[in-house]
Amino acid sequence: MLAGNKVIITVAVNGGMQQDRDGAIVPKQPVEIGEAAARCYEAGASVIHVHARDKHGRNSGDREIYAQIIREIRARSPILIQTTNGIGVRRDPQTGQFIWPTDAERLGLLSLDPQQDLFGIAAGSADFYNPEGGYPEETPYVNSPALLKQTIQAVYEKGSALEYEVVEASSLHRLVRYAEEGLFDRDRDNMWLLHGGGFGATPPVARNVLFAIDEGLRLFPKAIWGVTATGRDMFRIVTLGLSLGCDLVRVGFEDGIHLPDGSVARNNSDMVRAAAAIAAIYGMKPATVEEARRRFRI
Amino acid sequence: MLAGNKVIITVAVNGGMQQDRDGAIVPKQPVEIGEAAARCYEAGASVIHVHARDKHGRNSGDREIYAQIIREIRARSPILIQTTNGIGVRRDPQTGQFIWPTDAERLGLLSLDPQQDLFGIAAGSADFYNPEGGYPEETPYVNSPALLKQTIQAVYEKGSALEYEVVEASSLHRLVRYAEEGLFDRDRDNMWLLHGGGFGATPPVARNVLFAIDEGLRLFPKAIWGVTATGRDMFRIVTLGLSLGCDLVRVGFEDGIHLPDGSVARNNSDMVRAAAAIAAIYGMKPATVEEARRRFRI
Amino acid sequence: MLAGNKVIITVAVNGGMQQDRDGAIVPKQPVEIGEAAARCYEAGASVIHVHARDKHGRNSGDREIYAQIIREIRARSPILIQTTNGIGVRRDPQTGQFIWPTDAERLGLLSLDPQQDLFGIAAGSADFYNPEGGYPEETPYVNSPALLKQTIQAVYEKGSALEYEVVEASSLHRLVRYAEEGLFDRDRDNMWLLHGGGFGATPPVARNVLFAIDEGLRLFPKAIWGVTATGRDMFRIVTLGLSLGCDLVRVGFEDGIHLPDGSVARNNSDMVRAAAAIAAIYGMKPATVEEARRRFRI
Amino acid sequence: MLAGNKVIITVAVNGGMQQDRDGAIVPKQPVEIGEAAARCYEAGASVIHVHARDKHGRNSGDREIYAQIIREIRARSPILIQTTNGIGVRRDPQTGQFIWPTDAERLGLLSLDPQQDLFGIAAGSADFYNPEGGYPEETPYVNSPALLKQTIQAVYEKGSALEYEVVEASSLHRLVRYAEEGLFDRDRDNMWLLHGGGFGATPPVARNVLFAIDEGLRLFPKAIWGVTATGRDMFRIVTLGLSLGCDLVRVGFEDGIHLPDGSVARNNSDMVRAAAAIAAIYGMKPATVEEARRRFRI
Repeated sequence: MLAGNKVIITVAVNGGMQQDRDGAIVPKQPVEIGEAAARCYEAGASVIHVHARDKHGRNSGDREIYAQIIREIRARSPILIQTTNGIGVRRDPQTGQFIWPTDAERLGLLSLDPQQDLFGIAAGSADFYNPEGGYPEETPYVNSPALLKQTIQAVYEKGSALEYEVVEASSLHRLVRYAEEGLFDRDRDNMWLLHGGGFGATPPVARNVLFAIDEGLRLFPKAIWGVTATGRDMFRIVTLGLSLGCDLVRVGFEDGIHLPDGSVARNNSDMVRAAAAIAAIYGMKPATVEEARRRFRI
Repeated sequence: MLAGNKVIITVAVNGGMQQDRDGAIVPKQPVEIGEAAARCYEAGASVIHVHARDKHGRNSGDREIYAQIIREIRARSPILIQTTNGIGVRRDPQTGQFIWPTDAERLGLLSLDPQQDLFGIAAGSADFYNPEGGYPEETPYVNSPALLKQTIQAVYEKGSALEYEVVEASSLHRLVRYAEEGLFDRDRDNMWLLHGGGFGATPPVARNVLFAIDEGLRLFPKAIWGVTATGRDMFRIVTLGLSLGCDLVRVGFEDGIHLPDGSVARNNSDMVRAAAAIAAIYGMKPATVEEARRRFRI
Repeated sequence: MLAGNKVIITVAVNGGMQQDRDGAIVPKQPVEIGEAAARCYEAGASVIHVHARDKHGRNSGDREIYAQIIREIRARSPILIQTTNGIGVRRDPQTGQFIWPTDAERLGLLSLDPQQDLFGIAAGSADFYNPEGGYPEETPYVNSPALLKQTIQAVYEKGSALEYEVVEASSLHRLVRYAEEGLFDRDRDNMWLLHGGGFGATPPVARNVLFAIDEGLRLFPKAIWGVTATGRDMFRIVTLGLSLGCDLVRVGFEDGIHLPDGSVARNNSDMVRAAAAIAAIYGMKPATVEEARRRFRI
Repeated sequence: MLAGNKVIITVAVNGGMQQDRDGAIVPKQPVEIGEAAARCYEAGASVIHVHARDKHGRNSGDREIYAQIIREIRARSPILIQTTNGIGVRRDPQTGQFIWPTDAERLGLLSLDPQQDLFGIAAGSADFYNPEGGYPEETPYVNSPALLKQTIQAVYEKGSALEYEVVEASSLHRLVRYAEEGLFDRDRDNMWLLHGGGFGATPPVARNVLFAIDEGLRLFPKAIWGVTATGRDMFRIVTLGLSLGCDLVRVGFEDGIHLPDGSVARNNSDMVRAAAAIAAIYGMKPATVEEARRRFRI
């Protein structure tokens, strides 16, 4: 929880694989994303987490599309923009096989122009399983140590903030090791630790998420910490995080399309409003962009 | 969560010690309680948890007053009536000292006429600390094994349902021991396990409540389980419980007077409506009296 | 774990209720206790936790007997001497009923002459259940807030160290509250937190002990922390504590008579040796009396 | 713990990458392995976990070498033989890059002739980090769902037993999912769950291993469960497991070369004797081959 009982709401508006379904319209093109960002900003989000799509709505690592997205968002609202080098997979149109982006392609997103405000990185390899997020099959998701280390170095050299997407608590121990090796300062306070549930093999189970949160706070007592989860359990885990006083929650169509009551959200801003309503029960208000900037030290 | 996404709302309207304050009017006399029960029933409560007071509004174990209360409630609504042999303490008018009721007095409440629908019992001794509930001082609260065992036996012989008020997770292990000794069937499904926070030394802290819930469900997988908490944290813990799919929540003036937004409730039905509104966020509706009866098997 | 991979071994040689049985000889008279202390010191213990008995071997709060015990111990070894105001109960010879010592009697032990080195206090009320420790029945064990507060104040005024016997994790929150009220400094490093299992309702279950340990370290990061447990599980929990790097373990006839392999110890020093052998697996050695003194700052 | 206080000791004699060092001689050729197996059997091991090496001592998936190994072991002792399709990596002699075996190569080990007694499988992908086990660099270790599912099916069709090597607790949830999909019976009692520490990112930390054990027993209450760990922490985690009553421990040069006292073992049988000595502290004896067979139902 930030000073003044504030919580940062991140909206992950599209992901790389999600398609429109059941009435949920996923923003895919730059203008659509810019408009969605503005609506989410109005609803209380201070950060947008965004993936690029090509003209056909397919996952893309194209730096020019990312640049357009950033311009379209900035034209409409001051919301902070986050990219991740978890670009996501593509399907080969011929074979139907998954094609994972190369490390080079993923690292390319570190130097966009105009520049994004924040970065994200998956903090380790795991078997990805998120049927409600557009990944019907369980599939190994490799995030090599080399990629992770290069990203950490590059982001901190920029003076920006980096969100570690933690799907296994063990990744926290990896980060401790890297810090002890001198890669970064363990006590820096722009560390994000997103203790999600439902991205790897672990279902979004309270016991597991709590274990990960507690390990995170034990190992990185000064971290900015947030929670999220996939699918229909998203808001259950968001509630758990808020009840424990988290600094940040992430909701949005990248990870699920259902509101807490099980109905389908029409658009991402519905999810932001739902998060804000639960935060209000815990006496918390959405952090403004300025408050989020101060907390991230950016 | 009951079948059909229903949740039982219990309203603990008065407790033994709470007095009117800050605009919250605590029902104390039988007619007042009967009227409060009817309003809470209209708002969605299916169970009323009630303590008797004497003419001066002081805590009482008088069986005749209890009988009157039951008659006044039943005259106005079909809400289920629960008493507890946690009668609460009285102050000696001369010395100002707390006087705890005797076990005999507490056991007397098991055989009221007309009979209540449900029973409650504190599942162990602890140091009671609930400044917002009318107990300004921390004080040992003895619930002897003998009292507990006699109550369990008596209630189950009646074919009624018994709520175990669990303030320390260790009490769950005591109940396992009693079950293994043959006192009751561990798999009976009219077991209640109210994992509250804020009654003993533990403040209403999510981590602790979650541990207690988890132990409870591990030790008694078929239990009907509910949550509550005291003071300003009541609705934070209730929300946590609802997000995790609990079967029952308890709110009301016995445990606190504040609504989720921090304002003071005018009367108990405001709190029932607030609980129902939070349940709605998670797609749950208040259980009817009939649905509660079926779940309790009474 | 103390600097240099050392662990303090406390031996609780007799308790108030344990009798000789199954070949285990419980030291009861001052000379016997003095001799046991010396043997345990030789085996690696740096602290003896001791209860007085009368001529008939029954639990006693007699300050003169305590003084004799201290003299007999000191005549034979430099081991640190700890008393507790958890004196334990006596049986009325007429009625067979338990008689608990008064608070006055318990507080009397704070000012012995010669003076003990260390103090202990039960950090809350609970239902005591320790059939292997001479308490065949479960019985409420009241430790009033007043007694606890007076003891804390008196011990810290002496500049001595106080062990809080924590049987319910909630007691840790009580201590936080007392610290916040100004009773003591939460960061003082002579705080002991003995996260035992098996004294209250909770059986010595790893999950529960770990929860208590983690809460303790979260709430009191600078605490000296130790573990113990009752009966046949004593060494299982001691192993758990050592595997987690605890500062102190307590073993001895007060809490059980069985060695890790299930055989009955002939005397307390067998138990000290068993603890030292397990510590050795974790690369730890018994702390000397001097090392223990430095850690306790006495 | 098996009936009669027995524990199965598995010795993992060589792994794929370990080389002789610091005086520890790693058995690599079939005859060496056969002799090591016999010595370990004499010392109390009932299972040998074995990897094949080529003539140059390098990791190999060659089925003929495996067959020779099995013959050499069987010629000397009745110890049960386990292979795993975690074959391990090879280094390309030209580039120095790691080359992982193909799934086809890994699946080839399921049908050796003569046949092994038991099988093992890594239960998910992770970043492997085991510097003391011959893997100086952290490296993604992919174990695809397809490979895992095919192995499960093949092994259970043979009526054999399968050890799931669990390095992340989340893998347990994957196995629950597979069981629910009908791949195997969740209650079958030849399920092994090896809750190791130190193979993935998580160092061999008691808190994490305990969480994994607890999740495992909650999700698979009838499982045969064992523990192991890498490097200098091997015996610390083995001791924790034994103190908690595990069914199986695994030690040996695949995972580390140090004895509990920090000295280097000369050969694998030293490690088996050390495990047996720790088991004895807790009153447990090594299971015989016959007792292990009965427990595995093979």
